[in-house]
Amino acid sequence: MTTGKVTLLSAGPGDLDLLTIKAAKALALADIVLLDDLANPEIVSLAPQARVIRVGKRGGCKSTPQAFIQRLMQRYALKGLHVVRVKGGDALLFGRAGEELTALRHAQIPVEIINGISSGFAAAACLGISLTHREHCQGVTFVTAHKQDHGEPNWAALAATGTTLAIYMGMTRIDSLCLALLSAMPASTPAAVVQWAGTPSERRWLGRLDCMATDAVKAGLQSPAVILVGDAISEAAADVHAAFNAWENHTEAVQHAA
Amino acid sequence: MTTGKVTLLSAGPGDLDLLTIKAAKALALADIVLLDDLANPEIVSLAPQARVIRVGKRGGCKSTPQAFIQRLMQRYALKGLHVVRVKGGDALLFGRAGEELTALRHAQIPVEIINGISSGFAAAACLGISLTHREHCQGVTFVTAHKQDHGEPNWAALAATGTTLAIYMGMTRIDSLCLALLSAMPASTPAAVVQWAGTPSERRWLGRLDCMATDAVKAGLQSPAVILVGDAISEAAADVHAAFNAWENHTEAVQHAA
Repeated sequence: MTTGKVTLLSAGPGDLDLLTIKAAKALALADIVLLDDLANPEIVSLAPQARVIRVGKRGGCKSTPQAFIQRLMQRYALKGLHVVRVKGGDALLFGRAGEELTALRHAQIPVEIINGISSGFAAAACLGISLTHREHCQGVTFVTAHKQDHGEPNWAALAATGTTLAIYMGMTRIDSLCLALLSAMPASTPAAVVQWAGTPSERRWLGRLDCMATDAVKAGLQSPAVILVGDAISEAAADVHAAFNAWENHTEAVQHAA
Repeated sequence: MTTGKVTLLSAGPGDLDLLTIKAAKALALADIVLLDDLANPEIVSLAPQARVIRVGKRGGCKSTPQAFIQRLMQRYALKGLHVVRVKGGDALLFGRAGEELTALRHAQIPVEIINGISSGFAAAACLGISLTHREHCQGVTFVTAHKQDHGEPNWAALAATGTTLAIYMGMTRIDSLCLALLSAMPASTPAAVVQWAGTPSERRWLGRLDCMATDAVKAGLQSPAVILVGDAISEAAADVHAAFNAWENHTEAVQHAA
């Protein structure tokens, strides 16, 4: 019996057209699909031969323990099957891929990684901005505000970098997050929150950092959403509405959160 | 006469299978393709109806001025054509998309953005690591070392964030870059350089920060390449060779740089 393999597959921000061609090809050949809560469930239509197992881990919901997911992957791969582990966004940005890769290697199971679009990039596309406009910054930092997985980020250092901040998993503690950011950057710093970017359920809020905690929640934004903070966001503030009106094939599907 | 439109299309790190399905669809309908030097030139095979114009801007080579590129986009779009501006990686990470978006909006030309895989993500996939392994860091910072477009980054602040650093456009000044990093982080910090990740021309170097400037260049690494620095890179150091041997459909095409 030959050993199977595991593909860590990035499902992107939700729109199935934002999958890579490589991801679509892998799904077509999958025997087993382990499906993350953050991925669009319609992705299973691309894996007609596969047995689909849902292994969501969203905060507050009934969750599948990480160790169990790792055992599932190994069990099916050792049976000679092609296991596709579907993760929202890009598999290599947050989301426990590091531990899964270690476990698979220890079990000597071949593993392939297929990149995808992380929701921070999709949020920038939704706002019509570069994450790194050269008049505003030298880069962008993707950081998680999830304290269970990581300690509190060094917000002062992050602010001092001058990079755009793309904050993941921050909505459930947006009040304390904004307070921490406000101690390190001006109250007028441009900020945005984007939920389900690029999908028919897309919602967004755009404003100043000091209004974000109150106004974004009031506008109905909630997890999972990406929080963007930094001067580069001002490019959206200037003419985001004009830009949106011009985007054919897109505008009507967008739910205006503001 | 109707106005055309411009699509800012992300070509990803080179492998055409890492294009999104959305990108392939846009190319199939393109009238004009403006092709960046950093994109795989074979991408034009996906745009059979299009007139292709090369508008490269690589350092040291004959380059196309940014203003000229912007005029070209506007000229063809105002003729009613669908112009696809192809950019390497993700269009919203470095690469002047900010200025192009502003110019297009001022000219009231509809613009659509299609995300892609930035080379930092592809580099992590090549090394078999998460960019944000939760035992090592809380995030990842994408930063450019290109001093003409931006000033010198605040390396001390970047080091203090504890995030993995993914440094773009750093190979032409890797000596001064390493010196700056070494003043802010330990000499033993794990580091890697990956060129043309995920393509048959892929090359990589893996080692310690204090050896990088000398050894990566000696190993033949050059622009365009992504430099990765941070403790998360140690996950590759542990078993990258075993991991690579296990990656079917891939290993043979890789040129071992080390």
